[in-house]
Order: sequence, then C-alpha cells, then structure tokens
Amino acid sequence: MTNPDLKNIAETSGLQERLVEIRRNLHQEPELSNEEFETTGKIKAWLKQANIEILDLPTLKTGVIAQIGTGKGPIVALRADIDALPIDEEADVPFRSKVSGKMHACGHDFHTTVALGAAYLLKEKENELPGTVRVVFQPAEETGHGAKDVVDSGGLEGVLAIFGLHNLPELAVGELGTCEGAITAGVDRFEIVINGIGAHAATPEKGTDAIVAASQIILALQTISSRRVSALDAVVVSLTRISGGNTWNVLPGTVDLEGTVRTLDVEVQQRIPEMIRQIIDGIGASAGVSAELKWYPGPLATINDAYWAQFASDAAEESGYATKVLGPRMGGEDFSYYLQQIPGAFVYVGSSSPYALHHPKFNPDETALQQAAEYYSHLATRCLNELITR
Amino acid sequence: MTNPDLKNIAETSGLQERLVEIRRNLHQEPELSNEEFETTGKIKAWLKQANIEILDLPTLKTGVIAQIGTGKGPIVALRADIDALPIDEEADVPFRSKVSGKMHACGHDFHTTVALGAAYLLKEKENELPGTVRVVFQPAEETGHGAKDVVDSGGLEGVLAIFGLHNLPELAVGELGTCEGAITAGVDRFEIVINGIGAHAATPEKGTDAIVAASQIILALQTISSRRVSALDAVVVSLTRISGGNTWNVLPGTVDLEGTVRTLDVEVQQRIPEMIRQIIDGIGASAGVSAELKWYPGPLATINDAYWAQFASDAAEESGYATKVLGPRMGGEDFSYYLQQIPGAFVYVGSSSPYALHHPKFNPDETALQQAAEYYSHLATRCLNELITR
Amino acid sequence: MTNPDLKNIAETSGLQERLVEIRRNLHQEPELSNEEFETTGKIKAWLKQANIEILDLPTLKTGVIAQIGTGKGPIVALRADIDALPIDEEADVPFRSKVSGKMHACGHDFHTTVALGAAYLLKEKENELPGTVRVVFQPAEETGHGAKDVVDSGGLEGVLAIFGLHNLPELAVGELGTCEGAITAGVDRFEIVINGIGAHAATPEKGTDAIVAASQIILALQTISSRRVSALDAVVVSLTRISGGNTWNVLPGTVDLEGTVRTLDVEVQQRIPEMIRQIIDGIGASAGVSAELKWYPGPLATINDAYWAQFASDAAEESGYATKVLGPRMGGEDFSYYLQQIPGAFVYVGSSSPYALHHPKFNPDETALQQAAEYYSHLATRCLNELITR
Amino acid sequence: MTNPDLKNIAETSGLQERLVEIRRNLHQEPELSNEEFETTGKIKAWLKQANIEILDLPTLKTGVIAQIGTGKGPIVALRADIDALPIDEEADVPFRSKVSGKMHACGHDFHTTVALGAAYLLKEKENELPGTVRVVFQPAEETGHGAKDVVDSGGLEGVLAIFGLHNLPELAVGELGTCEGAITAGVDRFEIVINGIGAHAATPEKGTDAIVAASQIILALQTISSRRVSALDAVVVSLTRISGGNTWNVLPGTVDLEGTVRTLDVEVQQRIPEMIRQIIDGIGASAGVSAELKWYPGPLATINDAYWAQFASDAAEESGYATKVLGPRMGGEDFSYYLQQIPGAFVYVGSSSPYALHHPKFNPDETALQQAAEYYSHLATRCLNELITR
Repeated sequence: MTNPDLKNIAETSGLQERLVEIRRNLHQEPELSNEEFETTGKIKAWLKQANIEILDLPTLKTGVIAQIGTGKGPIVALRADIDALPIDEEADVPFRSKVSGKMHACGHDFHTTVALGAAYLLKEKENELPGTVRVVFQPAEETGHGAKDVVDSGGLEGVLAIFGLHNLPELAVGELGTCEGAITAGVDRFEIVINGIGAHAATPEKGTDAIVAASQIILALQTISSRRVSALDAVVVSLTRISGGNTWNVLPGTVDLEGTVRTLDVEVQQRIPEMIRQIIDGIGASAGVSAELKWYPGPLATINDAYWAQFASDAAEESGYATKVLGPRMGGEDFSYYLQQIPGAFVYVGSSSPYALHHPKFNPDETALQQAAEYYSHLATRCLNELITR
Repeated sequence: MTNPDLKNIAETSGLQERLVEIRRNLHQEPELSNEEFETTGKIKAWLKQANIEILDLPTLKTGVIAQIGTGKGPIVALRADIDALPIDEEADVPFRSKVSGKMHACGHDFHTTVALGAAYLLKEKENELPGTVRVVFQPAEETGHGAKDVVDSGGLEGVLAIFGLHNLPELAVGELGTCEGAITAGVDRFEIVINGIGAHAATPEKGTDAIVAASQIILALQTISSRRVSALDAVVVSLTRISGGNTWNVLPGTVDLEGTVRTLDVEVQQRIPEMIRQIIDGIGASAGVSAELKWYPGPLATINDAYWAQFASDAAEESGYATKVLGPRMGGEDFSYYLQQIPGAFVYVGSSSPYALHHPKFNPDETALQQAAEYYSHLATRCLNELITR
Repeated sequence: MTNPDLKNIAETSGLQERLVEIRRNLHQEPELSNEEFETTGKIKAWLKQANIEILDLPTLKTGVIAQIGTGKGPIVALRADIDALPIDEEADVPFRSKVSGKMHACGHDFHTTVALGAAYLLKEKENELPGTVRVVFQPAEETGHGAKDVVDSGGLEGVLAIFGLHNLPELAVGELGTCEGAITAGVDRFEIVINGIGAHAATPEKGTDAIVAASQIILALQTISSRRVSALDAVVVSLTRISGGNTWNVLPGTVDLEGTVRTLDVEVQQRIPEMIRQIIDGIGASAGVSAELKWYPGPLATINDAYWAQFASDAAEESGYATKVLGPRMGGEDFSYYLQQIPGAFVYVGSSSPYALHHPKFNPDETALQQAAEYYSHLATRCLNELITR
Repeated sequence: MTNPDLKNIAETSGLQERLVEIRRNLHQEPELSNEEFETTGKIKAWLKQANIEILDLPTLKTGVIAQIGTGKGPIVALRADIDALPIDEEADVPFRSKVSGKMHACGHDFHTTVALGAAYLLKEKENELPGTVRVVFQPAEETGHGAKDVVDSGGLEGVLAIFGLHNLPELAVGELGTCEGAITAGVDRFEIVINGIGAHAATPEKGTDAIVAASQIILALQTISSRRVSALDAVVVSLTRISGGNTWNVLPGTVDLEGTVRTLDVEVQQRIPEMIRQIIDGIGASAGVSAELKWYPGPLATINDAYWAQFASDAAEESGYATKVLGPRMGGEDFSYYLQQIPGAFVYVGSSSPYALHHPKFNPDETALQQAAEYYSHLATRCLNELITR
C-alpha cells in the first residue's frame, strides 16, 4: 500500500499547489475499475490527515465516502469517480503514468482531487455547516457499476441532494456548463451473432452467406436513427466491431457484430432492442441465416433536476465561473443511477485539454483544480442552506 | 381485307425479288399480337395463289397452317411468327410502317416471308416429297401465348419434328447458328407490391417507409444471381419499373415494383419465385411493411434436341451457310412450347442489322431472304428423308 | 367578389358566435396559395365593417395588413396565415368546403378568424393602446413565400416585436405551448435524377441499372441522420417519391427521386446538400450512372427569441391558458422569415382535432376561437406596455 | 527421409493392393505445398524400384518427372499433383494422417498413386511404346504456382500433349467426366482495405464509418454477378473474410476484406478488377473513406482442347468407364497453366466420397485406383499412337 507522503495536505492555504501534488500522485498510479485498492488507500490516508470522518461501509471494496458536518440538519452529497482506463499514456508530462497500459485518460484523478479539496475546505468550516456533506469517491465508473455499489453500500442514506462534476476538455478553465433534463446519454452495449451456412467460396449457393447478410443488417440498422425514432429523439446506433471468416476461399458460417446504442430518453432506450430484433430476425429470414441479439444494458441517461441544475449553475456564477447551458452529450455516465434515487445535478467544468477524453494524450489544465474545489465546497454549503429553509 | 396484288408470286424464279416485295408489304402494315387479321388474310391469299393447301382450324382466330405434301409418310413442321410490336418505327426506309406506334421491330415479317418462300419451294416439288410439311404462321409470339394456341388448334397433330428460325442482327447474312440444349431463356414476369404505412415526411417514425424497404428488397434481389444460384446457371433478375409517392412531403404507403426473370434451366426457373418470396417476406418483416409477389409465368427455355440441332446445322452447311455454335441467349421465345411436345430445333439466321431487335431503327438485310427460304425448304425435305429411313 | 353578409360583425359581445360564423364562411371557400383573392376581399370587408384601418401595400396582391392604434409609441405585429391546401375535404361537417380539391386542412381559417377577432378587440380599446398593432393576414404560407412578400411590401416597417400562432390538434382547447429556440424546422425540398443506360432486361450488362443505383443511394441517404450529423441535431431526410421505368422487360435509363430535408439548426441545414451530393456523386460513379441534385430551399427553422417566448407564455397564463414547454416540431413554417428580421415568438394553441393537420378529416374545435382572439389581443397590448417601459 | 518398404512395388500383378498400400503411405504423411520433400523422396524411391528413369531437373526443389519410352517418337505427359492441405483430418480411417493440421483432403495422394501405377504399367511395355511418356509429379498445386515451376524446370520440353485428372467425390467409381472448353475456373484472390476515420461510437459524425462503408461495398459487389456481366458468363465474387474494430465503444478506422473471384472466360476475368475498383472508389468517395484493392492473380480457367477432351473421353470408354459430359466447375486448378502452353485435356474420375473435397472427412473410394492407373496408361499410349499417325 502506497504511503502518501504529502505534508500538511489538509491546510487549505497553498491549496492549489497541494491539489496539483495530489493529482499527479494519482495520475502516476492509475488503477482500473474495481481494482482501485491503492487509490482508495491514498484517499483514506489524505482524509485522515485532515481528520475527516470516513464512513464504515463493509460492502464497498474500493472507493470511500467521507462525511463532514455537525450531524444535524439535512445531508447532501458530492461525488467524484476514481478509476482509470486501459490506455497507454502518450502525454508528454513529467508525471506520466508509471503503469503501462493504464492511464487516467478521463480525468478521474482530476475529479478525485477536486472532491478531496472540497472536503478540506468544508472541514475548515465544519462547525458552521447547517447540515452534513458526504463526499463520495466512487469506484468503477467506467464499467458502469460503481454507482450502484455505492448506493447498495448504504452510504447515501438520508441524502437529499447530490451533485457530480466532470471535466470537459473543450470548455476553457473558468467555464462551467450544465442543463436541465438529460445531460449524458443512456448507454447500452450489444452483440449480434449471425449464423449462416459456410460453403466453398466458388459455390455460395450451397450455403447462406453470413457476410452479405451482416452487410444488409448493418445498413438496415441505420434506419433506426433515420426512420424509426423521431428526429427529436437523439439516438445513436453504432456497430463498432465486425469479424467473420479467416481465409480467402471459404465462406464463413458465422459473423460477429458488436456495438452500442446511445439515447437520451428512457422510453426510447427501451424500444431499441425490439427494433434491432425486428431487423435482424427479418433480414435473417430473408437471407436464410439466423441472427441472435445479446443485450447488455448500461447506465440510463443522466437526467438533471431542473431546479438543482439551475441551482448548481447559480452557485458556479458565485464561484467566479462563466456559466453556460451545455446541452446533452451522447457519452454515458453512471451518475445517472444516483439521480434515479436522489434529486440533483451533474455539471461540466472546463479543463482546456487539447486532446479529448480517452485520448492517450489527454492532459487537463491543472490550474482548474482549486476553483473547482472551492466551487464544490460552496455548492454543498449553499445547498444545505437552501434545504434548511424549506 | 387487303388484296395482295403481288403478281406471279408463286413462281420461284425471281424468288428473291418477290420475297422482298412480300416482306415490305408486311412491314408497312404491322399488326400486334392476336390482332393479325389482315396479315393472316394476306398470307392465306399468297398461299392460295400458289395452290397451297390451308388447314381448316376453327379455333385459330389469327395465324395459318399451310400443308404441302403427298399425304403419305411422316409429317414435319416449319414455323414462322407473324405479329409486330408496339414500337414507333424510326428506320429510314421507303417501306416504313404506315401504322403509327406499331412496327415489325423483331423481324417477324422476315420470318413470315422466309416461311412463305419455303412453302413455294416445297410446293414446286410437292410430288417428290417423301412426306408432308406443315408451314406454321403463328400469331402472338410476343405475348407468349401463340404457340399454345397453335398446338391447341390441332394443327400439329402427327408432326414428328419441328423447326423454327429467328433472324439475328449480330450475325452476318450467310451465317447461321444454333446449339444443343437451351438456346433461348425461360421468361417470367413479376410484380411486387410493398405496403408500408404512409406518414408526413417530417415524422417517418409514425409510419413504415415503403421506399426504403423497396430499396432493401431491390439490393437483396441481386443476391439471387450472386449467391443463391450456381454461377453456372444463367439467371437474370431485373427490376424494370418502380413507382411510389406523388409529392414531396408525404411518405407514400405503397411502392410498386415490376420485373422479369430469365433462366435456362427449368428446375432453376421454378425455384426463383420462392427465393423472391423469401426475400420480400423477410425484409418486409424487418421493415414493418408487407410485400406481395404476383407471378406471371411465361415461356420456358427453348431446349434444342441435340440430334436435330446438329441436323439443322448440317442442313445449313448444305444450303451454303457458314454455321457456328451459337450458345444460349437470355431472350425468350415461345417456340419452347413446341419443343416440349415435339422434338426439333431452333436456329438463328444472320440478318446484319446495325440496330438490335426491338430497336425502332431495326432493319434486317433483305438479301438474306432467299437463302433462308431455300434453307427452310431443304431442312424440311432432308428431315422427311431422314424420318422415312428410321 | 363575395359580399360577406355578417351583421354587426364588429361588435365584440357575442364574439364567439360571430367568430364561428366567420370561420365557417372562410372554411367553405378555401383558396390556394397566392390565389386568396376572395379571402382577401372578405377580410378587408370585415375589417371595414369595424372601421379598422387597412394599410395600402400595392405589391401585396393577396393578403392584408390591418392597423389599430394611436399612431404613437411602439409598433407590434400579430400574424395569421390565410391560404388553404389542395386536399379534398372528408370531414363530416355541415360547413364542408364547397370547392372540390381544396380545403382549409391546416386551420389557416382558424388563424385568420382569431386574428380578426383580436383586431376587433383591439379596436374597441384603440384609444387606450400605448402604441400600434399591425394585424397581418399573410398569403401563401404553404408554399413558403408569403412571409417574404409581406416583408417586401413594407408593411412591417417599424415593427419591434411580432407574434404568430398555429392551432395544434394534439393540444386540448385551453392549452398553449411554446419554447425558446427552434420551434419549427427548416424545410428544404430536393429532386435527384439518376441517369443510367437503359438496356433489355435480359442483358443488364449492356447498360447501367438506374433502379439498382437508386436503391443504393436511398440506403446511403439514411446515413445522413445515422452517421453524418450529431444525434443531438434533429435531421430528417425523407425520400417521398420514386419513379422509373414503364414496362416489364426494359431496364429504364432514368429514375426520378424527390424528397425533403428537415433541420432545426441553420448551420446543419446548409451542410446537408453537400452531403447528398457526395453520396449521389460517389455512388453514381460506383454504379456507372450520373445523378443530379436539384435543391429547392424552403423556410429556415423558426427560432423563438427566449425573452419573447417566455413573455408569450406568461401572457397566455394571464389569458387563462394552461401553458407548457412544447419543444420543436419537424414541420415547417414561414413565420421563421419574420423572426430573422424582428424579435418575437411563435406559439401553439390547442384545437383538439381528432385528425392531424393536413388530414382530409381535420376538424379543429371552434370553441377555441374566442379565447385565442382574446389572448392575441392581450399579448399585443401587454407587449406594447412592455416596450414603452424600455 | 522415409524409406518406403513396399515390397515388389513394381510388379503390376496385384497392382490394386499395392496402389492402396502406396496411397495410404502417402495419406498418413501429408506435406504442404513446396514442402513435399519426404513425398518427393518416396516417389523417387518407388520409381527407382521399378527402374524408371527420373529426369534431372535442378530447379525443381520438390516434385519429380519420370520418363518412360524408347526415346524415339513423340512425347506426351501425364500429370499428378502431390501436395496436401492445412486441414485437421477427421476421417474415421485406420490410415488417418499422422500429422496434426495437415491432410490429403483434396485427394492428391490418390492422384499421385494413380500416376505411379500408370508409370508401372507403361514401364512394363516400355519397348512397345511408339514414343515417350513423361509422368509429372507436380508440387504446390494448392498454392497455384507448382505448374509454372514444372514448366520452368524444362521438364516438359518437347511434350506434344498433356493430360491431367482429378478425383471427384460426387462421381461414382467407374464414372469419368470431361468437357471441351473451360472445365475449371479462373481463380483470383483479392483484399480490400477500407480506411475511414475512427471516432467515439457516440459521435459518428466526427469520423467516417468504415464498417458501414464496407457493408455498402459488399452489397454493391453483388452487382458484378447480377448486373455487370452477362448471365451467360459464369462469375463468382465472394467475400470470405471481414474484420474491423476490437471493442464496443470505438468506431474503427479500418476494415479489412478478403475474397476471391471465379471466372470461366479470360476476357471476363480481366475485367473484374476494374469493376471492383470502380465500386470501391465510388462508394468510398460517397462515404468519405478510402478503399484500396490488392489483387493476387491466380490460375486461369483450364480450357480443354475440344479434340483431346473427346479423345480422353473415348479412351475412358475403352478403359471401361461410363463417361459423361461434365461441364465446367467453379473451383480452380493450375493444370490450366500447362494447357496455355501445350494442347491437352483434364478429366474427372469418380471417387465416390460421401464428403466433399477439402472436407476434413473426405475419403475417396480406393477401389477406383487400379482402373484409373490403367486408364492413364492407356490414354498415354493411345495418344502416342495417334500422334505418330499425324
């Protein structure tokens, strides 16, 4: 277990420098979803250095929930995610990932650091808080199951409002965006296995051609977006992998397809599998092949509460951000799971990276850290004040 | 009824000149399938001028069968077709069609003239014939039903061998080609009606798009030739007409397709409708539309008897033709119907037209007429001689 | 010219009854775009009965602009459209269209009546108005050119804010909806002519198949929505008409396609023709056919000003409507043209028809008329009051 | 090197038993193309046991040419192929392949044995031969380059006629088929690399989708058979391998396709690459991807000389075979290379296997061996006799 040797980490004077130190420490030692043991240990150590309470949640194997407050009044939550991605870092930075094939390419190190900074700031004025703040360090966001593990751990019981944030490379440092309604997409994964009858390439009439059938299916799947859902319902159906055959003179019996569906509306999301099934069954029958759909449901769309989205934006203005309405994006985020249980909002914080999220050269601007931490702390405090007046 | 004023038509000296005269007379007054009343009258008149017997066949409304021979020995038949096409002639000839919208664009006037010339030649030596020759002037070849009407009339009873010929623009005058087995294709016609659900063009999701479904069906029908029959089985599936919708902002509920299938093998021909049905049913189901197939069977492939094909080719050599093996062609010919009942063969005679059959400028070289008439006469005589030795 | 015999039409007591009378009068005598001469005459007569001023706009061949006010202060405009559609009415009502093949199937008779009612109400309190209201009876909305004609006439000079309304069958009487930003779609029309090389259906290799190429193009056009624009950009590309070939055994040389594109974003709208061109050029080259795109630009999206959309909604609440945010719809509306020049907003008023707009049985609920007229009058007055405080 | 311990192998009494012994020996020790060193050694040993002359051909690394004759008169050649396939044998026979992953699944062990038997029979009457017979044991037929290596070795110099045979599972033992003209297909291999622009699966508009473009290309390639060549020209275009992408949420930048083309006519064969290029270039341009064609020409169609095909069939009748005209087949055979240099013919000999060529359970009926060897010997002798009379 890594022993974080950051001195005086809990002092908030010089906060920016220490947040940079924390973030680089996390960045160099990335861990994949559900394997964030070292990361969890470091977060706990940094929390303890500041005498911040850590909830005892036995089912939570990785991840931490910190608690700051008087124990009276309402409870609100701030969430960060802590896992990294299976990407080989190519960013030209002195604190590059030390772990080959793993990288904080989505900036969860950034989020963790911001939440930790917010925890320190809240701790400084703990006695003045009109309630309690839980700071959630969630594991396994990338696989889409960490949020559920956090909820199942019981660590969010009694929470009346929850907020999440994500850095956004295309927003400048100092900008913050959110919107009401859907802000991230519902994300499902699927596989299609097409079974035809293999044959010698010279005599296709003795089999049924799975590659040709796959092509017909792929083109037909385009009609989901173009014909079967309203243009006003944002839907993406992408085929990302195709594989069939292994030589030049044999028609393969099988073709495998894989892909993903993105939606902003839950009702639409639920109709898509049946549309795919209708397409593959019908075209399969037309081509004399069978086609099987395997469906792997992922997170729903993240639906911001209108009130709390405006509230979070207003708080950002007060924290010095230039705010904007930043419409939905088709990426996924398991913060959606929290918002199915608890009101709240999700926001994007500018990180000015020249490279996109998940890019091997992704590199968020660290000067964004302190402002984000201050904002997160302010947002929680403002929310508690709002809740006690209700 | 036209009174053909051709003088001395039955004298075979000067035959070529009179055949040209006959052919131009026919050419200027074309009649469509089953409407060949004037044409029939003229043929009968020309036959009577030569004292050639005409069979009394009450069910045959148009068309004639002439008979030449001693009444003893075997019976063979020569066939010509007599109907024209609904095409507006554009050939720059002094004897252009006088009838707007009708033209002998397939050269049936040529065939009729050749058969008439053969009848004259046979009549000259009637007493020496070792049997009887029936010369069939068949109506309604273009619609594919004339051959059946001739057979049903009883006019071919007792016939032991039958021969047909067709001019071929891409063969030179003096060339003749045939082959054993299939020489013309089986020809079927079909219609497909695709019924979707109409909708406003702005909201396709409220209907099911028949135009998109039609496009998928059309591409899938290509796989009949490319995947579903052996490359060695010649098959053409052509969509020749598509029609759907009548304005710019409404998705139509219906699309109509029409087309044709050509095949050389009867067994393959019979499997095609089921292939089409599988395609339209499956793709229809995939797209939420229904698709109905209407099938209009036409003539089968013309299958030349191997023996008689060689026999007809040998006779052509003797008549001065350069002969060649001329493989199957994908056009149709209802001579196939005769060969399902009676052994025989079908041959192509060179007519050196710069324009193709059915082209509005089609113009066969008339110098081919006399040789073809002589050949036809020789072929019948040779066939009778062959049959009596059996 | 029809002489409207409506008595006391200008008295606003008993307004609902008279609005019904007016609307039925209009409904029975529908006129198509740019042919609204009788309709214009009737509107002018009804305005004159109430001593309402009519602007003298020589270039405006059909349509009217009325003016009510003191001549001082700001100017605002209310707009109605007046033209009918080429549809044969099937609604079972005693006041069915008397003109075969023409029908007020989009409810422009409803809108005209509402605007006329508003004019009467405004006239009653003309002296108290803190400015001037222009009531625009616009011709030729269905063809998308009437709004431009109105602007070009000069009749909107000096107007600081403009409002439009449309009845909506799926909203109940008493409901009103609007939204900020795009509320109706940009609408373009296009034609594609595909020129291949015709051939006999038995020998497709001698030509290039325009029907097969059209099918490939139609499927490829689906990728505009599915692949080439963001799922967040609402785009519809619909093929509504296809036509090629006229018989069963000839592959046609030409296929004609027609369709429409709907968009909510002007920048996206402008990129679509180039996408279509890329598709038809490339697939045309692949198939040996040429494909020509003819583009007929129509109205842009109607983009509601955020302020005035909220203002119009607030005014509706005050007029007793249940209001809702009613997001964009993919239909088109040339009110967009006004909003490119003048701030304002467009709203939907509930008309509870069991049949959709443009349906031959469309039948809006007339009980909605008086409330809508009162709302329109109130909205204009409220707007003038707002403008004088600026 | 294996030491074949077959006793008295050169005695032709008991020939069938020894041929079975030889064939099983070969069957158990299959070697792939160009690796037939052990096989070559065994053949040489068996030839030497019979005192049969072996040509010294230094460039021929594997394979053997034996020579039998007086050294006077004409020279003819008989050819067998000797290589095996990379297939894991599943046939339930006691002499199953001892080499995992290699199998004589095309029966080249059968052919080699037949040619060896023919050599023994010819050797017995060497002094009576009116010329010389070369028995060619060709390597690397499966890769399509062995025939050229044999010709380049000089071992066929002076040969006036050449014959080849292949066993055919669907023919019964005792049957032999051939035809004039094309008897096996021209075989080419190709690869297509489609380069689009990869993107996140949620934002396809930021890339160009190579999987969708591949699907369009695959469907368009069907039109080569269905629209671009005559139905009378047998053409197969098969896609046998497709591969693109390796995960579920990234659109891959590249898709690889592989396939084969089969043709019977050299002129048609030469036009196909340009057709494919037109399709991939055009659709590539339409979809914003580039597509590269890599073309690997293989053997041309095997074109039997009409005279020698009939001659080989007549010889078969004399050897007790039931003969038939056995039309072209779409498989390939590098015997075509010999027939481009030397007149001759290729025939199919019945082997009654319940499983097809290349099937892991392929198992030809060994009772066919002796008759085939006698036929091959007879054919060569008859051919020499024919040639000396010319």
